[in-house]
Amino acid sequence: LTPKYITVIGLENFPLVKAGDNLAKIIVETAKKNRVEIQDQDIIVISQKIVSKAEGRLIKLSEVKATEKALEIAKITGKDQKLIELILRESNAILKVSPEALIVKDIRGLTCINAGIDRSNIEPKKGQEIYALLPLDPDNSAKKIRKEIFNLTKKHVGIIICDTYSRPFRRGQVEFAIGIAGLNPLFDYRGRKDLFGYTLKVKNIAIADELACTAELVMGQGSEGIPVAIIKGLERVVFQENASIQELKISSEEDLFKNIF
Amino acid sequence: LTPKYITVIGLENFPLVKAGDNLAKIIVETAKKNRVEIQDQDIIVISQKIVSKAEGRLIKLSEVKATEKALEIAKITGKDQKLIELILRESNAILKVSPEALIVKDIRGLTCINAGIDRSNIEPKKGQEIYALLPLDPDNSAKKIRKEIFNLTKKHVGIIICDTYSRPFRRGQVEFAIGIAGLNPLFDYRGRKDLFGYTLKVKNIAIADELACTAELVMGQGSEGIPVAIIKGLERVVFQENASIQELKISSEEDLFKNIF
Repeated sequence: LTPKYITVIGLENFPLVKAGDNLAKIIVETAKKNRVEIQDQDIIVISQKIVSKAEGRLIKLSEVKATEKALEIAKITGKDQKLIELILRESNAILKVSPEALIVKDIRGLTCINAGIDRSNIEPKKGQEIYALLPLDPDNSAKKIRKEIFNLTKKHVGIIICDTYSRPFRRGQVEFAIGIAGLNPLFDYRGRKDLFGYTLKVKNIAIADELACTAELVMGQGSEGIPVAIIKGLERVVFQENASIQELKISSEEDLFKNIF
Repeated sequence: LTPKYITVIGLENFPLVKAGDNLAKIIVETAKKNRVEIQDQDIIVISQKIVSKAEGRLIKLSEVKATEKALEIAKITGKDQKLIELILRESNAILKVSPEALIVKDIRGLTCINAGIDRSNIEPKKGQEIYALLPLDPDNSAKKIRKEIFNLTKKHVGIIICDTYSRPFRRGQVEFAIGIAGLNPLFDYRGRKDLFGYTLKVKNIAIADELACTAELVMGQGSEGIPVAIIKGLERVVFQENASIQELKISSEEDLFKNIF
């Protein structure tokens, strides 16, 4: 009896990433140094922070000028007005303003705290406060990295760019996929049979989010310095050329939890 | 350079579970048949459904008598009044009643659709509709299984009982931990330093939920018949004797998303 198993590998000694770096090339080289072979149908999960760095999405807070609206929200939230200004620029709608949290629908359509902007794991420069914005179009970032990895290795992999999110109703954060390439973000059981032939009606698994959570187990959030994980041996991922994180987004009309609070 | 890696193993040929079965014994025997050695600090993730079955938490719908309240809610939701009756018995508070969803705070404190009651992967009996209720006290179920696995193997493992949940704001379901034993469900970075010495202020990772998601990748939801996964090689889990899923629950006062909808 041979059990099904998957392997989740965190790449050690990943170099610090700076604006303009070719992330795909760094990933391929670091995998080689780790003696990890990149194969067809591997999933490569990449922390949002290094994608933002490579794409030059770092902002010095001192160079931001706050608008009237930012000043107003800063007063309510107790946060820095320049940080609020950054969050507003990255948001399409403000959903909640309170001393505890500023929650927005960001320009990518993600409902999240502070539009995903934070300052962890960013190299400080002369005491400047530097914040990272999310990649402008994470699907496109993932697609470019996937294409370049194919050019370098001739392997068809799946790419997930992940970030850490708070959820309603549960304490603690988990990892979400914010951009993907080469895989369907869902694995849909609706219409399939269960063990006893009963047709499943609701189950549609957000497999990209589960893969992001899986990668986080080896990546960590602090001083681990492991921004990339490779997941091997997956049987239940549908690899496909056209894929978008948009499929994980849900309109408020469709959201079963609407009007619940 | 040796990369960090974890292995996620789905146990094949897991027998069908019935009321009164000793789940720990079945897990140990099935692992042996799969030639998987159970070791200290393995995490064993178990699908809620087989725990419910072993604990006799299956209900024939025909034997349920609906109350007035269940009739009333059945009219709004369009669901079977006897199923509604079961959901009400398993709930402390009703949060939303609509044709799309019945969302409750269940008797365990979980905010979820239909109090976690469903009918997938349950052996049918003479055309009867049979539903599984969640284990009455999933932490206690996990604790008993952990103790029995220790008796059989002398190994200290972590146990997670998992179930599938819909989330607000995102399409698709992911796996959550609903009961645990032997591990801290959170990995807290608050007060720790990042790569560059900045002190993290918010990050507190719901590692038990991430482990549940990881297990789901090999378990599946349909006819796979893999209700147990073993995760090996974890470095970032805090193993401890006293642990409870209560730590992942959050009061509505503390919930950053309160009043958002």
